[in-house]
Amino acid sequence: MTTMLVPALHRSRDLVTPSLRAAVDRLDPTTRALASYHLGWCEADGTLREAGGGKALRPALVLLAARACGGPEDDAVPGAVAVELVHNFSLVHDDLMDGDTQRRHRATVWSVWGSSSAILTGDALLTLAQQVVLESGSPYLADQLRVLLDATAELIRGQVDDLAFESRPLVGLDECFDMAAGKTGALLAASAALGALSAGASPAAVEALTTYGRHLGTAFQLVDDLLGIWGSPAETGKPVLSDLRSRKKSLPVCYAIAQRGPAAEELAAWLTTPAPDRSLPITVDEAEEAGLHRAAELLEACGAREWTLGEARRHVAQAQCGLDAVALEQEPRAELAALAEFVVERES
Amino acid sequence: MTTMLVPALHRSRDLVTPSLRAAVDRLDPTTRALASYHLGWCEADGTLREAGGGKALRPALVLLAARACGGPEDDAVPGAVAVELVHNFSLVHDDLMDGDTQRRHRATVWSVWGSSSAILTGDALLTLAQQVVLESGSPYLADQLRVLLDATAELIRGQVDDLAFESRPLVGLDECFDMAAGKTGALLAASAALGALSAGASPAAVEALTTYGRHLGTAFQLVDDLLGIWGSPAETGKPVLSDLRSRKKSLPVCYAIAQRGPAAEELAAWLTTPAPDRSLPITVDEAEEAGLHRAAELLEACGAREWTLGEARRHVAQAQCGLDAVALEQEPRAELAALAEFVVERES
Repeated sequence: MTTMLVPALHRSRDLVTPSLRAAVDRLDPTTRALASYHLGWCEADGTLREAGGGKALRPALVLLAARACGGPEDDAVPGAVAVELVHNFSLVHDDLMDGDTQRRHRATVWSVWGSSSAILTGDALLTLAQQVVLESGSPYLADQLRVLLDATAELIRGQVDDLAFESRPLVGLDECFDMAAGKTGALLAASAALGALSAGASPAAVEALTTYGRHLGTAFQLVDDLLGIWGSPAETGKPVLSDLRSRKKSLPVCYAIAQRGPAAEELAAWLTTPAPDRSLPITVDEAEEAGLHRAAELLEACGAREWTLGEARRHVAQAQCGLDAVALEQEPRAELAALAEFVVERES
Repeated sequence: MTTMLVPALHRSRDLVTPSLRAAVDRLDPTTRALASYHLGWCEADGTLREAGGGKALRPALVLLAARACGGPEDDAVPGAVAVELVHNFSLVHDDLMDGDTQRRHRATVWSVWGSSSAILTGDALLTLAQQVVLESGSPYLADQLRVLLDATAELIRGQVDDLAFESRPLVGLDECFDMAAGKTGALLAASAALGALSAGASPAAVEALTTYGRHLGTAFQLVDDLLGIWGSPAETGKPVLSDLRSRKKSLPVCYAIAQRGPAAEELAAWLTTPAPDRSLPITVDEAEEAGLHRAAELLEACGAREWTLGEARRHVAQAQCGLDAVALEQEPRAELAALAEFVVERES
């Protein structure tokens, strides 16, 4: 991570966490406990934890965008809390839908408390996000709510597409980019836009920061897909070759298959082999492990690894161009630029 | 159903349905298909259906409250669409959580398309509800969103309590009323409030209609609990003694147990016997059927059936008192009064 960015991320987390906690404290005791666990603030039995939480990239983006538009950070806090709540609503529901038992090296909410509790916790976080924005009393309330709701709708649409992809033999690269734009790009774009709106920025500045956020989101997803295949399990907290295990039609996979030729065909055929049932006790299935390593080789042979990193860099460059479209405050602008670089360099 | 009320319910459905359809049309094609099926507009294969939908009680309440406060119905339509969307979000998620395979004599969304699709359809309907209110451009937007969001949060909290009750041997009557206030009362109260707000009503009128809606909701839940035990399967579309089959700690059950004595104790003991696994093929389990009929007898012996109907009537009377607190337009006021009577008289 660039040295410049570390203080910015820490600072934004320090600034947002008290309001995020105050929001979560409004939930009923059961949901509050589950949400606090999910957010890394406590263990499943309620014991407090020291460290916790994810990267909190979205809140940082809201605060940086606000400062870049000359606004006070305090006015951006409700938006920062809201995007983090929407993000975590989607994580809690996605973990259940994907059957993932681990996130950030910890058991997922549904795997500890069951699926009904996970559904309700997600529903409560989503509703709370809107309440936080509504109660901010911002003079730009209607625009902020519109941005947040439209992004939430896009995020859900992206997840619907992702789910539909699972039961299809092949997925086109355009469709896959479109899904990623919904699932990842929309909320990052909304984060940047919410920060700008909280500062009363001009429509041109809101648009510029939205463009930045959207490209950042696509770059983020491309790198996520790289890490899902070639990432280090110690860093990502996921098993080695994780996304191949679930036969995920990620961007590198869709790119590789679109290249045609023998390697692409062999990969396409392997993708249709069923993944082992993850609800069964974990045993080493040698044929499966060999298939996974062969699939990773085929992806490299098709140039998918190189292409994905190149595309991520291209979207980061486009995100940077977004920042050039309008005049922004120098220091936070530099931090936004560093944030974009971080997205490509990160290892988890 | 009172003859007066039928035209009011039909009229409000005719007025709201085009906007509800227009809202649902904004969803992605997959979610739109599932939502349209759930709302009774088409079959699972997409074939259009003639009749459909539920009672649409909440939209009718929004429109009647608006008229009662002297407002035009058109201004109340976005709120009416929104409460129907929130209601259906909760039905789609609740059917999944409760494992119910049938609703209104039709297969539930999760039982046709699986749990992930049901989660996403619910999430999409919830988000759409907020979008509809936001885009109404109402001058009372912030108040309307606050009412809708607070009711949604209460509804989710009620469902959290309901879920928690399942794993507890006994539930106090107060707790049970509190759960019902969240799960049913909050959205009915919000429906009446949204109608009043759309008409630019005074805070006193909004408060009066909220009181009406809240008591209507409690009466509605009491009658729902009566029908869940003693309702006719042909009318309710649920199996006979339905709520006893699932060992539901409904209001009549909580009341009966609170009476103490031998019948209450026998009932409490029976409640802890496990319900047969509903995922297994249906076979007639004679011991279970005998237990169910005995439980129904015990409830009657404790006076629970009579008490529940009496309580429902008491809450209807309090709802009517709410209407007396402020001056309202005569005709819609009479229809609101008839709606409250209908809630107690209904058989499904």
